[in-house]
Amino acid sequence: MAEAETPNRSPEIRKDKIHNRWVLFSPARSRRPSDFKAKSNPQPNNQTECPFCAGHEHECAPEIFRVPADSTNDWKIRVIQNLYPAVSRELDFQNPVSLVGDIAVSGFGFHDVVIESPVHSVNLSDLSPAQVGEVLLACKKRIEQLRSCDSIKYVQMFKNHGASAGASMSHSHSQMIALPIVPPTVSARLDSMMEYYKQTGKCSLCDIQPNELLIAESAHFISLVPFAATFAFEIWTIPRDHSSHFHEIDSEKAVDLGGLLKLMLLKMSLQLNNPPFNLLIHSSPFQDDPSNAPSTHWFLQIAPHLSGVGGFEIATGCYINPVFPEDAAKILRDVRIS
Amino acid sequence: MAEAETPNRSPEIRKDKIHNRWVLFSPARSRRPSDFKAKSNPQPNNQTECPFCAGHEHECAPEIFRVPADSTNDWKIRVIQNLYPAVSRELDFQNPVSLVGDIAVSGFGFHDVVIESPVHSVNLSDLSPAQVGEVLLACKKRIEQLRSCDSIKYVQMFKNHGASAGASMSHSHSQMIALPIVPPTVSARLDSMMEYYKQTGKCSLCDIQPNELLIAESAHFISLVPFAATFAFEIWTIPRDHSSHFHEIDSEKAVDLGGLLKLMLLKMSLQLNNPPFNLLIHSSPFQDDPSNAPSTHWFLQIAPHLSGVGGFEIATGCYINPVFPEDAAKILRDVRIS
Ligand SMILES: Nc1ncnc2c1ncn2[C@@H]1O[C@H](COP(=O)(O)OP(=O)(O)O[C@H]2O[C@H](CO)[C@@H](O)[C@H](O)[C@H]2O)[C@@H](O)[C@H]1O
Ligand SMILES: Nc1ncnc2c1ncn2[C@@H]1O[C@H](COP(=O)(O)OP(=O)(O)O[C@H]2O[C@H](CO)[C@@H](O)[C@H](O)[C@H]2O)[C@@H](O)[C@H]1O
Repeated sequence: MAEAETPNRSPEIRKDKIHNRWVLFSPARSRRPSDFKAKSNPQPNNQTECPFCAGHEHECAPEIFRVPADSTNDWKIRVIQNLYPAVSRELDFQNPVSLVGDIAVSGFGFHDVVIESPVHSVNLSDLSPAQVGEVLLACKKRIEQLRSCDSIKYVQMFKNHGASAGASMSHSHSQMIALPIVPPTVSARLDSMMEYYKQTGKCSLCDIQPNELLIAESAHFISLVPFAATFAFEIWTIPRDHSSHFHEIDSEKAVDLGGLLKLMLLKMSLQLNNPPFNLLIHSSPFQDDPSNAPSTHWFLQIAPHLSGVGGFEIATGCYINPVFPEDAAKILRDVRIS
Repeated sequence: MAEAETPNRSPEIRKDKIHNRWVLFSPARSRRPSDFKAKSNPQPNNQTECPFCAGHEHECAPEIFRVPADSTNDWKIRVIQNLYPAVSRELDFQNPVSLVGDIAVSGFGFHDVVIESPVHSVNLSDLSPAQVGEVLLACKKRIEQLRSCDSIKYVQMFKNHGASAGASMSHSHSQMIALPIVPPTVSARLDSMMEYYKQTGKCSLCDIQPNELLIAESAHFISLVPFAATFAFEIWTIPRDHSSHFHEIDSEKAVDLGGLLKLMLLKMSLQLNNPPFNLLIHSSPFQDDPSNAPSTHWFLQIAPHLSGVGGFEIATGCYINPVFPEDAAKILRDVRIS
């Protein structure tokens, strides 16, 4: 009878203090076999053009703005409406009537797409630090427009890269969904950071000591693997100075972040062979209670998808990560970008 | 310029009161194109035998028990250790030291596999109601054994069917992970159900009026699509009588549930062409605060995976469901099983 496997290192259960959730670390899991044919990573069709390419603007839902503002065929970035939106800008918003019965509100909101390059084959990491900075500033600009709508409580910025990370379009883009509610994971994060602040008088992200979890730093940001990373090789990039909202970023910091983000994407891509990933900006709600200001701190998360999830994660919200964060950090630190 | 699509029905945002989270309903989303080659559903290799098959018991991690207990080659169900466990039964458990700093505990726990049939090609829905009942009773028996371990706080039962739902083994099986902590989604569910109880004096699941969301009923259970279903065609099966813990089920109810569960799996499989899915049992922690007893009610969830998730769901915990629950319920109600 086979022995239950002895892993190199014993499993450990760590608390993600920012989200107030537990993560299981178990190197043994990465050695289990699969009797399904290789989960192939679906590749994009061999197309060289799509609706997001320069010259195809008429195939897209309406444009909101472009960068540079007065460009014609030579645009660098376009922010457009999503043609198949999850929420609709055309609905009226009525506040949820607090009922004991079922609670539903109209699906009011904004769902936009940020086309990051006019060229089909260019990835975010192919852009220069200044160009990545321009993409970040375009997101900031759109978020500031959305802020003027009273019913919008939170904007989620996200990027899906690769089919297994959810992408349906391969042309480099990000999305933002502006919601009339504060989403559950965001509320949990705010509560958890407030709890830390109450206990220590400090912001939990200002208080991070990266040590062996550090990957790299720039003038205004640090990149590290979080102590209780949900995903193997997950990376957080955190502003050094306390700041609650992503849209507080200025041009200088955007270019600085552009450089560090590019470096992280290149290291990840080189080490893990261009994996599918999500890039997420975790910010704070717009009309946030001012008492939350000292405890909330925005950051950027890169979540590579090296393995799927199953029923356990869906049921419990507990993720299983086969790679200890200090090992992932060392590996990413050591990747040389030529 | 293309018009932003007008969906048949406007999007809606609904509150899942059991989990205290919002779900976006947007039929328009299901019409978006993909420029990735079809996400093929990985099929199992054409094998007819594997370590979970009768005759291969020696290739497995140690057995815990089998059904019938005194069977030899003619076993019907085996409960075994997982060879690549997420948590280890060999570690000591120390309680988390409450630190302001990083919190980690040893990865103590039990990770078991329930092999549901000796035959490689038999699915759970191929078993008779009484046989499905026996699988449920084997789970109950193992959970009762795990209860005797003081450090175990919660047991999560889950089944992964199909590679996109996480399965690495195609031979029909379920798993259970017994944890020394209460997982985050479970705590959120308990809190939310307690809140409902405080407001109404009633258990939120006893209080459900299925109406147009009903799919089918049996003597002791009802099956419905929840009002704020996270996944398209998601099904909940709920005991009619108030009960906090799955392991309170008796033999008669197990067979009754076996029949209804089989019916739900057949309807789903026929309507959705054998989709990947997770089957989850949502129970309560072992040493639960007695004040939670009137508000907690176990149930069984079937979550088909018809589309993947992306960065938005990971960041926000808000899911996007393209199918309204009342439409899904009608379709499932109308599926005839010959
Ligand atoms: N000879 C043997 N003896 C005993 N046990 C054996 C064995 N050979 C394999 N096993 C175990 O059998 C189990 C089969 O489980 P599943 O097919 O349900 O999915 P798995 O746990 O691999 O991961 C899915 O579910 C988990 C939890 O949801 C997710 O973390 C993950 O991403 C997803 O793929 C594996 O856990 C494996 O370790
Ligand atoms: N001509 C056009 N003009 C304007 N917009 C166009 C367009 N053609 C397509 N689009 C939009 O472009 C977007 C491309 O987005 P992504 O590739 O990042 O993933 P998608 O949103 O499809 O879904 C992924 O992300 C979401 C959110 O995380 C998950 O719900 C989902 O499961 C996952 O696949 C789509 O939302 C689509 O509606």
